[in-house]
Amino acid sequence: MNGADLLCATFVANGVELCFANPGTSEMHFVAALDRCPGIRCVLGLFEGVVTGAADGYARMADKPAATLLHLGPGLANGLANLHNARRAFSPIVNLVGDHPATHLPHDAPLTSDIESLARPMSGWVRRTVHADDVGRDAASAIAASLAWPRQVATLIVPADVAWNATAAQPVRCEMPVARAPDAARVAAVAQALRRRARTTILLSGHALRASALETASRIAQASGARLLAQQSNARMERGAGRVPIERVPYNVDQALETFAGTEQVILVGAKAPVAFFLYPGKPSSMLPPACTVIELAGRDTDLAGALEALADELRVPSSVAPERAAPAQTNLPTGRLTPGAITQALSALMPEHSIVCDESVSSGRSFFPPTFSARPHDFLQLTGGAIGIGLPLAVGAAIACPDRKVIVLQADGSGMYTPQALWTQARERLDVLTIVFANRRYAILQAELKNVGAGEPGRNARRMLDLDDPSLDWVSLARGMGVEAGRADTAEGFADQLRAALAQRGPFLIEAVL
Amino acid sequence: MNGADLLCATFVANGVELCFANPGTSEMHFVAALDRCPGIRCVLGLFEGVVTGAADGYARMADKPAATLLHLGPGLANGLANLHNARRAFSPIVNLVGDHPATHLPHDAPLTSDIESLARPMSGWVRRTVHADDVGRDAASAIAASLAWPRQVATLIVPADVAWNATAAQPVRCEMPVARAPDAARVAAVAQALRRRARTTILLSGHALRASALETASRIAQASGARLLAQQSNARMERGAGRVPIERVPYNVDQALETFAGTEQVILVGAKAPVAFFLYPGKPSSMLPPACTVIELAGRDTDLAGALEALADELRVPSSVAPERAAPAQTNLPTGRLTPGAITQALSALMPEHSIVCDESVSSGRSFFPPTFSARPHDFLQLTGGAIGIGLPLAVGAAIACPDRKVIVLQADGSGMYTPQALWTQARERLDVLTIVFANRRYAILQAELKNVGAGEPGRNARRMLDLDDPSLDWVSLARGMGVEAGRADTAEGFADQLRAALAQRGPFLIEAVL
Repeated sequence: MNGADLLCATFVANGVELCFANPGTSEMHFVAALDRCPGIRCVLGLFEGVVTGAADGYARMADKPAATLLHLGPGLANGLANLHNARRAFSPIVNLVGDHPATHLPHDAPLTSDIESLARPMSGWVRRTVHADDVGRDAASAIAASLAWPRQVATLIVPADVAWNATAAQPVRCEMPVARAPDAARVAAVAQALRRRARTTILLSGHALRASALETASRIAQASGARLLAQQSNARMERGAGRVPIERVPYNVDQALETFAGTEQVILVGAKAPVAFFLYPGKPSSMLPPACTVIELAGRDTDLAGALEALADELRVPSSVAPERAAPAQTNLPTGRLTPGAITQALSALMPEHSIVCDESVSSGRSFFPPTFSARPHDFLQLTGGAIGIGLPLAVGAAIACPDRKVIVLQADGSGMYTPQALWTQARERLDVLTIVFANRRYAILQAELKNVGAGEPGRNARRMLDLDDPSLDWVSLARGMGVEAGRADTAEGFADQLRAALAQRGPFLIEAVL
Repeated sequence: MNGADLLCATFVANGVELCFANPGTSEMHFVAALDRCPGIRCVLGLFEGVVTGAADGYARMADKPAATLLHLGPGLANGLANLHNARRAFSPIVNLVGDHPATHLPHDAPLTSDIESLARPMSGWVRRTVHADDVGRDAASAIAASLAWPRQVATLIVPADVAWNATAAQPVRCEMPVARAPDAARVAAVAQALRRRARTTILLSGHALRASALETASRIAQASGARLLAQQSNARMERGAGRVPIERVPYNVDQALETFAGTEQVILVGAKAPVAFFLYPGKPSSMLPPACTVIELAGRDTDLAGALEALADELRVPSSVAPERAAPAQTNLPTGRLTPGAITQALSALMPEHSIVCDESVSSGRSFFPPTFSARPHDFLQLTGGAIGIGLPLAVGAAIACPDRKVIVLQADGSGMYTPQALWTQARERLDVLTIVFANRRYAILQAELKNVGAGEPGRNARRMLDLDDPSLDWVSLARGMGVEAGRADTAEGFADQLRAALAQRGPFLIEAVL
């Protein structure tokens, strides 16, 4: 057995069964070890942003880590943007980054770089293994670190000789971390604050947005008169008909300020006090009124469902108080011009139960959220860190974690061009993913932001940086180039027809919705 | 005037006239300032790897820096792999990375990250501007740092408020750095070593591979009996008929060891002592025999052409010793099966004078080098840092630097999928780039490396990570999807026909060569 075998065995012993990979020469012994290890499924991404984004999607749906296999510093660098998103999603991921053997590093061969410096900004845990004998222990530590609440990205750097050297060490099992128990003093303090009957918002994120925790939160809100609100961006929300309908903090600063105007206290449940995504001249960083009190019921390292239950008990919410539930609605198919609203209407009507919606529609998709409170129950996964290029990879990971569920990607065209290679992996793995490209042929959000920051109307140079229409991207061609069947729609009726056909089949399909 | 205007004016004052950009909200004031600044041409990349790779190609051909405009930490992260290559190419580049204003950073908004930690591994110079008044000085320092020999990547972090705040400061001109003069003592020592008539290799890189410096080196080699050799990978070589023919150190370790077997001394001229690209079990890091002496004539911070001239003078090389020059050869067009060799043959016959060849053909392209010694004179640009995904972006930058020259990309299919978005920029800017995709539909180099590292024959899992044929990439579709006209060839005759037609027209074209 060599170090690479030991590492694979340690993964299997700890329930890590999936490896999203883009290996190179320094990782060849892992490739060989994975070859000998039937307990791990390997999924190739043609670019590392696909690899790390897929690991994020997998973690959000499987609630456990996948491994990634990345080729030295540059391979890690290519995956960092989606690791940034994963960090903001608190997704457990174990990165394996190959490197030169220690004796080769002083020679500064072309691919040498400071991997630790690259890894740290997006990783909560970084370690370099030095001996083959240690790689089982270190891999187990990486898995445990990734699962330590609030969960995080763990990066293990494994020099090539650690992989190829023989070892007699045995696989190590790690202890599975448990979330912190709710803090009784905080529960009591929050209960007291809620009894004050001030104008209160309970702000939720993380596992507090799963269906059952939300029901508890809804009962608390009704008993206390507080308002429920979700953080602006969340790793995963369970929503739709029969579930608790909950709005999010708006992205737009003026709207967010208006949302919190008059709020006297905010209770945080796995959420952060709301701040502006970007700072704008003359506007504040915090979205809360200056006098607003902020009390944390529980942080992301805590059992949020448990904390909400403890709060409901402390408040003695009567069992007669039922959670608010969104009623199912019959939606007609849209007609006429193809707009984001028409796309939402068609999805509301046709989206199957237990769909997983991966949203990177940026400006075009803002219309999706409100009407789909009453759509069939679904999971909703968002861009959490603002690093665009997550939509298509996220869908890869979600589809692998949940092979029996339809995955629907709401994909802005500008962002989609960051990691289009994910379509190839969808084709190779025959994933049941429907991608809807909102083809407005511009960075629409930036055209709005140019005005928001007070920089005025775009001239020729600026338009050349904000328009994508010269030439227009042909997403049908792009998808077919990577083995994914595709169609184009430019009317609401045409879109609904394509959507119905795409949902009736299994496997990847892309609809370019020309807006 | 605001900070962004001051920064643009400083760029113009120092001859920086090109900005490869992928901006976001925090860079909107730059976009507005660039709009008002006719002295700077803005080129949009749909992914930051395109932006930084294009800046590298521009620097290699223009011998001066372009600016890049990148969106906070994740935008920089996406550009790092090609900045790694640029660092290894000693290309001057000035990165502008936007960030949140200092007052917003403690709020840890979603896009916040440790930009300095991300920037340092691939940058020789990193600074954060704090006040709008300082941005002229800092930009001038960044330009000067990028041009300081041996030239490097300089990264300036510019918070959004530095861009939008008003300033009365004036643009700053930087002093243009000059290369270090040749060191007389080293010149004398090398001359003495050469007179010893030991078995000597003069190893060249950097500006020593430009046509005129190579002529001096060739005269020295003939007078001294030394062998000339180029580093394995080089930013730019001037070669072809009428120029000095010079081989490179092989990538393959056994071949490299064989190349240096019996070598008693190596003279470095802007080159590094040769090391293995990767370390393999039981093989050495250094490619030189243990007893071989290494003497550096001049490092990359030195005027290499001047150092070679000083050495020729010191050796009193007679003026009658003429440089070796490759004779032009008439090459017939290839027939039969389409192979890498047939592609080289067609290129040798048809490639126009002063073509710029960007080589990221990895394993398929190794056949290109020897037969094209006698092709029409051309520049040859290589992958310098091993971070794949440079070919298509490099061509963008080279074509913008040299609009009157044909740019030819030798592109492996696996590497090409890292930054295919560059094709869109080629279309948008109507760049005269011909891309030849070597479609072998696998990571061929890794299949060889799996054996090289002693990991054996690939099984099913390993093949799934090394093959690209399920599904096959359709490069014609991909190119058309981004607005680039394309054709496919699977015979030598078909390829030659397409090549002739493509070379006869201006503008981007892609040939998928199915091998």
